Amino acid sequence: MARASGHTVRFVIAPEQPGHTPPADAHASIRLAFYSRDIMQGSSKGAPSPASRAFFDILDAAPRAEWLHVCSAGIDNHLYQPTLRRAVRLTTSSGSNAVPIAQTIVGAILAQTRGFTYWLRAQAERRWQPLGPAQMTRDLHEQTAVIVGLGPIGRETGRLLKAVGLTTIGVRRGTGAVPHFDRVCRLDALDGLLPSCDWLVLACPLTPETRGLLDARRIGLLPARAGIANVGRGELTDESALAAALHEGRLRSAYLDVFATEPLPGSSPLWTAPNTWISPHNASVSPGNAARTTDIFLRNFMHWLNAEPFENDATPSAFTGAADSRPA
Amino acid sequence: MARASGHTVRFVIAPEQPGHTPPADAHASIRLAFYSRDIMQGSSKGAPSPASRAFFDILDAAPRAEWLHVCSAGIDNHLYQPTLRRAVRLTTSSGSNAVPIAQTIVGAILAQTRGFTYWLRAQAERRWQPLGPAQMTRDLHEQTAVIVGLGPIGRETGRLLKAVGLTTIGVRRGTGAVPHFDRVCRLDALDGLLPSCDWLVLACPLTPETRGLLDARRIGLLPARAGIANVGRGELTDESALAAALHEGRLRSAYLDVFATEPLPGSSPLWTAPNTWISPHNASVSPGNAARTTDIFLRNFMHWLNAEPFENDATPSAFTGAADSRPA
Repeated sequence: MARASGHTVRFVIAPEQPGHTPPADAHASIRLAFYSRDIMQGSSKGAPSPASRAFFDILDAAPRAEWLHVCSAGIDNHLYQPTLRRAVRLTTSSGSNAVPIAQTIVGAILAQTRGFTYWLRAQAERRWQPLGPAQMTRDLHEQTAVIVGLGPIGRETGRLLKAVGLTTIGVRRGTGAVPHFDRVCRLDALDGLLPSCDWLVLACPLTPETRGLLDARRIGLLPARAGIANVGRGELTDESALAAALHEGRLRSAYLDVFATEPLPGSSPLWTAPNTWISPHNASVSPGNAARTTDIFLRNFMHWLNAEPFENDATPSAFTGAADSRPA
Repeated sequence: MARASGHTVRFVIAPEQPGHTPPADAHASIRLAFYSRDIMQGSSKGAPSPASRAFFDILDAAPRAEWLHVCSAGIDNHLYQPTLRRAVRLTTSSGSNAVPIAQTIVGAILAQTRGFTYWLRAQAERRWQPLGPAQMTRDLHEQTAVIVGLGPIGRETGRLLKAVGLTTIGVRRGTGAVPHFDRVCRLDALDGLLPSCDWLVLACPLTPETRGLLDARRIGLLPARAGIANVGRGELTDESALAAALHEGRLRSAYLDVFATEPLPGSSPLWTAPNTWISPHNASVSPGNAARTTDIFLRNFMHWLNAEPFENDATPSAFTGAADSRPA
C-alpha cells in the first residue's frame, strides 16, 4: 500500500538493549515509529523493559520523526513525555484491549456480587456455608453502576452491565446520550451519584482532573454496600483511604487492577483487604490484543499515507492546532 | 380474587415441627398447598427441615388435596414423591431464581476465564504475577459454550454469554430455534459437540436420561482447555471422574454448585481441585426469589380458580392425560 502511494518503506528494527544507535543515515530516515507490545513487555507502569529504553533512546534522537503509534491506551507513560513535548504526532491503541478488560471487570462484579468472595473463603476451609441475609446483595436489576470514563472500556462495561440488568450511569466530560447507559453526567455531578451507587467503576485516563478522584471524602459518600472496580490508574484513588475503608467494612468489595506503585509492594494493605480481588495490571490479558493493536497501527498508517485524520490521535493540541480529540 | 369467584379461602398454616396434626375437619378441607421457601429452609437436597417434614406429613394424609405448588424448580426432591404417585397436580417455581443462577454461572465463567483463578492464588501470597501464555485462554468471542438444558436458567445463561460474544449451543429434547443460541441440538448430538467446547454448562433437570450425563467417557471427549459449570444436580456428573480430571489438569477449571451428597463431605477431592470454585447449592441466592416464587403461585392460583392450564405444570401425564409439558 505504501508503494502504491509513492513511498518506500524501510524498517529500522529497535535493538533489544539500549546503547546500540542505528547508523546515522538510518537514524535520520526515521519518520514514524510503532511502539509495539513485544517491545513494551508487560505493563506501561514500573521499570521499562531494556527494549523500551532502546526504542525511545533512538526515537527521541531521530531528527525527522513525525509520528509515534503506541500499543497502550493511555499516554501517561513517562517514556512518551519527550514525544509529547515536541512536534511529533502521537496515536494510541485505545480500544484494542477494551473488550477483554470490560469482560474482566464484569466477571469480577458478577462473581463478587453473587457471593464468590464468601464462598471461596469457606471452600478454602472445606466449609459448606450458604450466604446469610447479611452477605446477600440486592438483585442485580435493582443495582446501579456508576462508570467514570466512557472510552471503549467504559462503554463496553456499560453494555455488558446493562445486559445483566443494572442501571448504568456514565460520567465523562460531555453529557450526550451513550448506548446502553441510562444517564450520562459530568464529573461535577459525581458526588450526587455516589450515595445510590452499588458499583463504582473507574475506567478513565489519569489526568490532572482525575488524579485522586476517589479520595477519602468521596469514599465516605458511598454506601457500605458499594463495590469498587479500578482499571484506570492507581493514582485515581487514595489507596490508603481505600484500603482503610475495605478493612473497616465501609465498602463491600473491590476489584483492583492498577496501583500507584507497580508491582504493588508486599507491604500494601490492599493485598489482604477483605473481599478484594487483585490482578497485576493484567485485566487486559488476551491473545487477540496484539493483532488488534497492529490493526489500529495499520489503519493509521493508511491515514498517514493519505494525509487523513488519525484514529486515536492523542497529540497535544499545541502541535495540531485542533481541539483535544481524545475520547473522554 | 377467590371470593369474587365464589370460593372461600381458609388457611391451614403448617406447624414448625412434625407431630402436630391439624383438626380433622381442617385437614379434610385442604385442597391446595404451597410449599414455600420459608418452610423449605435451604436447598431441596440433604436432610429436610422439620417444618418440611411437618408440611408433607399433613399434605400426604390430606384426603381432598388436589394441587401442590413448590418453591423449587426441580421435582426430584424425595418429599415430593408421594404427591407424584397420587392424583395431585404438582406445579413448580421453575424460573423464579433463573436470573440470579445464570448471573452466578456467567460470573464464574468470566472470572475463571479472564484469570482470577490464577490471580487470587498469587494474591494470597502477595505475589505480583501476570498470566503467562500457558495460563491465557483464547479471546471469549472465539470460545464456545455448550449449555445442556434450555429451561429458564439455560436460556438466560445463553443470553448473557451471547452478549459477551461466545458461540452458544443449546442441548435439549427439541431442536427448534431458541433466542440467543447459535444452534440447538438433541442430547444424542452431545458427544460430537464436546471436542470443540470451551464451557460445558449443565442446567438440566435430573431424570433417568440425564443421570450420569457427564461420565468419564464424555469428560475424555472434552479438550483440556474446557471448563465445567454445574447448577443442575450433582448426579448429572461422575464426581470421581470429574475430580480426577481437574486434579490431573485434563480440564481447565470448574464451577460447581450441586453435588450428589449435600453438604459436600469434607473428604471430597472436589474441595481442593485446582481452578475449581464451589458454592454450597447457593447459586440462586437473592432477596428477590421469594417474591418471584409467590408471584408464580398466585398466577397459578388464579388459573386454578378459573380452571385454566397451570404454569410450570409438572404433574405426571398419568394424572393429566396430557403429554409431559415440562420445558426441556
